[in-house]
Amino acid sequence: MRNNLPIGIFDSGVGGLTVYRALHDRLPNEHFIYLGDTARVPYGTKSLATVERYALENSEFLASRGIKMLVVACNTASALALPRIRERIGIDVVGVIGPGGRKAVVSCQSTPNRPPRAIKIGVIATEATVTSNAYVEAIRRASPEAEVMQTGCPLFVPLAEEGWTTEPETFSIAERYLKPMRDFRPDALVLGCTHYPILRQVIQQTVGEGVSLIDSGEATAEEVEELLKEKGLANPNAVRVKRGLCDDLDHFYVTDAAERFANVAERFLGTKPSKLEAIEVYGGDELKQEV
Amino acid sequence: MRNNLPIGIFDSGVGGLTVYRALHDRLPNEHFIYLGDTARVPYGTKSLATVERYALENSEFLASRGIKMLVVACNTASALALPRIRERIGIDVVGVIGPGGRKAVVSCQSTPNRPPRAIKIGVIATEATVTSNAYVEAIRRASPEAEVMQTGCPLFVPLAEEGWTTEPETFSIAERYLKPMRDFRPDALVLGCTHYPILRQVIQQTVGEGVSLIDSGEATAEEVEELLKEKGLANPNAVRVKRGLCDDLDHFYVTDAAERFANVAERFLGTKPSKLEAIEVYGGDELKQEV
Repeated sequence: MRNNLPIGIFDSGVGGLTVYRALHDRLPNEHFIYLGDTARVPYGTKSLATVERYALENSEFLASRGIKMLVVACNTASALALPRIRERIGIDVVGVIGPGGRKAVVSCQSTPNRPPRAIKIGVIATEATVTSNAYVEAIRRASPEAEVMQTGCPLFVPLAEEGWTTEPETFSIAERYLKPMRDFRPDALVLGCTHYPILRQVIQQTVGEGVSLIDSGEATAEEVEELLKEKGLANPNAVRVKRGLCDDLDHFYVTDAAERFANVAERFLGTKPSKLEAIEVYGGDELKQEV
Repeated sequence: MRNNLPIGIFDSGVGGLTVYRALHDRLPNEHFIYLGDTARVPYGTKSLATVERYALENSEFLASRGIKMLVVACNTASALALPRIRERIGIDVVGVIGPGGRKAVVSCQSTPNRPPRAIKIGVIATEATVTSNAYVEAIRRASPEAEVMQTGCPLFVPLAEEGWTTEPETFSIAERYLKPMRDFRPDALVLGCTHYPILRQVIQQTVGEGVSLIDSGEATAEEVEELLKEKGLANPNAVRVKRGLCDDLDHFYVTDAAERFANVAERFLGTKPSKLEAIEVYGGDELKQEV
């Protein structure tokens, strides 16, 4: 039965684990297949054509595994490749940009004592996502008069992967990147890269407690829940025991360097995947490698 | 005539431009073909099998262009893939690890007033290069009793690419990475990643002025000069006009995102390549992309 199939998730690497966590927390009856394209990470500095090709290969790999829905956890791939993936794959595809943008708008509109002016939304993301303008467009579709300011924060990804979540250098770098954003005084700030929730505390402190931080992964999990209901695809078999993150109901694949992935996963989620395999996805083929 | 052929250089991305600069400065009669594998950068966090495959594809692309010698400018590829490249390619191949290790030893041995103890050499590099132990082996081959200490400095690459060469955050991060190295009190410190010469000033200040910094790129240029003489492969046609870096005698290829490469090249070398093309090297094929 289709409802019992897993939900597929792919990301350029480890960052999408924050989206996996959000999905896992919100949808305890579902199970997941995660693909981290660690052989070709990062996507954020690559071109449209290249990101599209990688995203299609990842999508086809997951589709071939039997999934009922595909979540593109990578912001860059969501920004650049969603239309091509939807053309190619015969199942529902959810990216992180639309949900993140919509949630930011709703969050601003529902703020009590909102000043009588257009809402102001900040977006922080990789270079490629900023250049694509995908968040700006998603926000404007939900609120045409919204003021939007975007900033690239290239060092946040390596800082998150190093696990430097509270180091003074991280605060200092955040200050340098985010001062113009703080001066812009946004009502909400979209964490437009999957790594950024790892630095949530630093980012919140830097832009000020009054700014709502929007985690696109959490927004995506909410929309996936609605879509599963709407399409009658939710898994009706309630899981009896409380499920753990990365337990053996969820299957993780990487395209390279599984050990490093497991270590960063532990840093991000507090636990290593119990089922983790290194594969090749070039051209949709699968060729096992020694891990 | 073979002597007129260019020297091929490849790197995982832009970092090898520091090696290109060293070769260009030392060998004004030679011209170069540079390949930056920007579609698959970085190599430093990837596995042996993957780095080997990428390195072989890059080498075959350059060999197919007609070169008289191949310089593997990428430390990670030099550490992991040199034997396989030499097997595959019928020309002389020079990596950066051997020259860097040997130069460090010679530099220590020629220090006046050297204390009567084994020489002490530090190595800073990417995770993959450190794990490979390639520098330790190269140093021990030249000086079996040398004491060697290695440290990975993952944030140095993104800091160099951001152009943060004198920012206080860079000093602070260097202090965090290099304090154990300073305490080790090396006679020489090998900059075992092509990006690190960009941060030379910060690194020198952090470890102390008494430590000789060894730029593997410069060491490689010296060995390439000797090898060209030894094999009778030097270009006899003296260039009459003083050559500029990145002028149109040198040809640059990238596998992705040419514009970003040009921008970082300008940050590293003060100038953009005048001949720059984006190509595909997968499986040795060449397929032009729009730049």
